Amino acid sequence: MKTSLYALVAASLIATPLAAQPANGAVAEDFKPSSLNQPGQDYPQVNSQGYARFRVVAPEAKSVTVSLGLGGRGGTTLTKTADGSWMGTSEGPLDQGFHYYHLSVDGGTFNDPGTLNFYGSTRWESGIEIPASDADFYALKPVPHGQVQQILFNSPSTGTQRRAFVYTPPGYDANKATRYPVLYLQHGWGEDETAWSNQGHANLILDNLIAAGKARPFLIVMTYGMTNTVHPGQPGGLASFDIKPFQTVLLDELIPYVDSHFRTLADARHRAMAGLSMGGFETKLIAPTHLDRFGAIGLLSGGTISMDDVARWPGFKDKVRLVFVSFGSRELDRGRTMLPPGAPPSDPRANAAALKAAGINSVFYVSPDTAHEFLTWRRSLHEMAPLLFRD
Amino acid sequence: MKTSLYALVAASLIATPLAAQPANGAVAEDFKPSSLNQPGQDYPQVNSQGYARFRVVAPEAKSVTVSLGLGGRGGTTLTKTADGSWMGTSEGPLDQGFHYYHLSVDGGTFNDPGTLNFYGSTRWESGIEIPASDADFYALKPVPHGQVQQILFNSPSTGTQRRAFVYTPPGYDANKATRYPVLYLQHGWGEDETAWSNQGHANLILDNLIAAGKARPFLIVMTYGMTNTVHPGQPGGLASFDIKPFQTVLLDELIPYVDSHFRTLADARHRAMAGLSMGGFETKLIAPTHLDRFGAIGLLSGGTISMDDVARWPGFKDKVRLVFVSFGSRELDRGRTMLPPGAPPSDPRANAAALKAAGINSVFYVSPDTAHEFLTWRRSLHEMAPLLFRD
Repeated sequence: MKTSLYALVAASLIATPLAAQPANGAVAEDFKPSSLNQPGQDYPQVNSQGYARFRVVAPEAKSVTVSLGLGGRGGTTLTKTADGSWMGTSEGPLDQGFHYYHLSVDGGTFNDPGTLNFYGSTRWESGIEIPASDADFYALKPVPHGQVQQILFNSPSTGTQRRAFVYTPPGYDANKATRYPVLYLQHGWGEDETAWSNQGHANLILDNLIAAGKARPFLIVMTYGMTNTVHPGQPGGLASFDIKPFQTVLLDELIPYVDSHFRTLADARHRAMAGLSMGGFETKLIAPTHLDRFGAIGLLSGGTISMDDVARWPGFKDKVRLVFVSFGSRELDRGRTMLPPGAPPSDPRANAAALKAAGINSVFYVSPDTAHEFLTWRRSLHEMAPLLFRD
Repeated sequence: MKTSLYALVAASLIATPLAAQPANGAVAEDFKPSSLNQPGQDYPQVNSQGYARFRVVAPEAKSVTVSLGLGGRGGTTLTKTADGSWMGTSEGPLDQGFHYYHLSVDGGTFNDPGTLNFYGSTRWESGIEIPASDADFYALKPVPHGQVQQILFNSPSTGTQRRAFVYTPPGYDANKATRYPVLYLQHGWGEDETAWSNQGHANLILDNLIAAGKARPFLIVMTYGMTNTVHPGQPGGLASFDIKPFQTVLLDELIPYVDSHFRTLADARHRAMAGLSMGGFETKLIAPTHLDRFGAIGLLSGGTISMDDVARWPGFKDKVRLVFVSFGSRELDRGRTMLPPGAPPSDPRANAAALKAAGINSVFYVSPDTAHEFLTWRRSLHEMAPLLFRD
């Protein structure tokens, strides 16, 4: 397990947003505040082409740079202006969707005071949103809304009170006789249980799908996928990562808690597991060997399932009702398909096709023009949700 | 209303934590990471005396200061160490409990990358926790836990989808025939609907009280108390503040949503309103003139109710089942009792006694050795909750 997870992280860390070349050098001067800015903050801004413009006040600083801007080429360097603030514009347009970033001010790492923070890379990072052409599917709209609730559940195996977030769909409170399927949805390495609702808008994606009659109402449960964190100690390390402790928390503690505290359909047919990046890897480690618990599997930028895998898992072909595998197109462009080092070359698209040919309900999805980032995963959830729990 | 709210804010802004003199100059070298640090972060630290020690990496910076440390005297100046980091210790111990702060790095305002962020002063600020001698009452313990859920409700009057957090007590899901009272609990100026659960631990306070049999299980609803914010536009300004728009949201939109989506006891006897600082002021503006909706009132560092007030409110004496007024002792020491400018001098303790003498269930509470900060309000909630909804 160890080497595989390292590979995932390595892939993740280099998957910074791709900055295209400037479009004829003409940057449209229609910049507006990013939707993730703190109340009242004018910067950072984004324009209609996807350029980002930053402004940071630090009149006595020697240098201010932004980690975001040009994949692998050092980000955006800000320059001091007459009023003492530091400003700069990304050299090219950024990919659509959500990006983590931070500032370097005189050699120190700080967040941009203009924006909200999101947990990624094992720290609360600044976030910026480049409006996506299809942003409507995760927009906050006047439709019936489900609720996202924090639960604290007792975990004897770790000796902790652990947190999860549970999305209950619109109507959950009113339809008191209805029981619902459940998707267990995991975050990626360096993130935590806040990611799927904060950065991912999982709740809004489901609200909108349900309002449009495109998905069956179901619960989503999101918890922290590592157990070797003692807050305020060290974040979950990968060197010591072992799936077993988290598997125990999930199977023996969280699922029983959810099934006893919520009106769930508590069988494998109505329970799915999916995750992004490391969360997909965890899904592949847990769900296929516990087919009495899970009937559907989703790997979002988090690996592939081959016929060789299927051969290792008794009953997989007959029991699993959906295998959903997705990537951002830029991940495939770059050949980074989240495979453990030493594994034989494996084309996730071909693998998905082989499963389909073998009679498994296998779906492969590629998010256009996105990398190992959250727009890939928002879109993946949006594609996967309608396919889940179709009795 | 305008001038009164300005007074509140002015009082709030000067209520920085009081730093006592060093205890014989001997600073105990038993510093430990603050409980609010980000995972894996060693700084800031606090010692057993309440001193705070900061460490910020910014090797090329000219100056780094911390806004926290000495009330009104400029905070803590860090000095550069051999390894390029900046370190410093508060000149004296800080008050117990939660404090907001931020850094000034070369003239710019940034958060401390070591800590979690909390919304206050209309920005996400750094937070540090000085362990309180009575911290057990808001600790996360292995008792049955309620849930904190985010709801999004439609607000026709503002044309927005608005957010609130709802605490449901342990047992809410299991006891499907039980209906519960509701406390509407407001934050202070510059804060938002996240404050009472993030900084205030309102959920843990109730969990622990309920586990000890000291409070009746009830719901807590926390929403944003200003309506003139257009995210990502300007935060709610006080110059244009008018209670009416928020009153409409609360009375005509949020309460009906809560009563239709949760199993509530939807009468005045089982509905209370309370708030801290500006939230107390809002409570006083809304609840006493809507006694068909609210049967109990709490002002936490947020004003006082006099017999002159009572005389203005028809039915108040007969209908109101609890008037809870509290302050931190340092607020009273300093004579800052949240009164509008131009109001006659009014002693909140004497006012509370006068109400009691007049036959009103009036309770006055003073939090020992705390100022206009969250330990005052955690303790106030802890004192008030057992008194609410006693049929």
